[in-house]
Amino acid sequence: MNNIFDLPSSLPKDRELFESIVSTDNISIERIISTGQTTPPGKLYDQDREEWVILLQGKAILAYADGSKIKLTAGDYLFIPAHQKHRVEYTSSEPPCIWLAVHGSMGKI
Amino acid sequence: MNNIFDLPSSLPKDRELFESIVSTDNISIERIISTGQTTPPGKLYDQDREEWVILLQGKAILAYADGSKIKLTAGDYLFIPAHQKHRVEYTSSEPPCIWLAVHGSMGKI
Repeated sequence: MNNIFDLPSSLPKDRELFESIVSTDNISIERIISTGQTTPPGKLYDQDREEWVILLQGKAILAYADGSKIKLTAGDYLFIPAHQKHRVEYTSSEPPCIWLAVHGSMGKI
Repeated sequence: MNNIFDLPSSLPKDRELFESIVSTDNISIERIISTGQTTPPGKLYDQDREEWVILLQGKAILAYADGSKIKLTAGDYLFIPAHQKHRVEYTSSEPPCIWLAVHGSMGKI
């Protein structure tokens, strides 16, 4: 049985770990493990598809292009519309952040 | 901020609670809270769409039509192909089961 909280015995420190769980034309579900990484200064994600993301372990801060920030703790989730520019400002390393992200062409919700 | 672990102050005892988080033509994401409910004896779910489901709190047992059983604890997840008949044999009530289910036309993975 696969468990979302089972982490590899050693995690890379220099990068996030992306693991595909479901990947099809219509939808992708992935686990992302962060250990302190953030989006490089000045850079923003600008995604073609909608994203629904939940933080399942750890603490994190997201920021939007207008400077507004969103603090996340375990269990917090949000919907990010396509092309809503955002960046990751902070991720905890102890414990590592475990994200579950669903990407797809969801349209407006 | 919405949190998947925030439960209503009182939960119905006679039924599961289904809450839509994302619902579009292509995909649905929902939270299901179980407090001991199971699939009625002799009944099996037979779904037209693929389902990816994760148990985030509690303990549960699923069963397939051939009688094989799958024990789930918090964090365990599985993919259920369309038309793979299954039923819920057990759900814990203390703590309640918190499921996150993604339904969509995912195709084969």
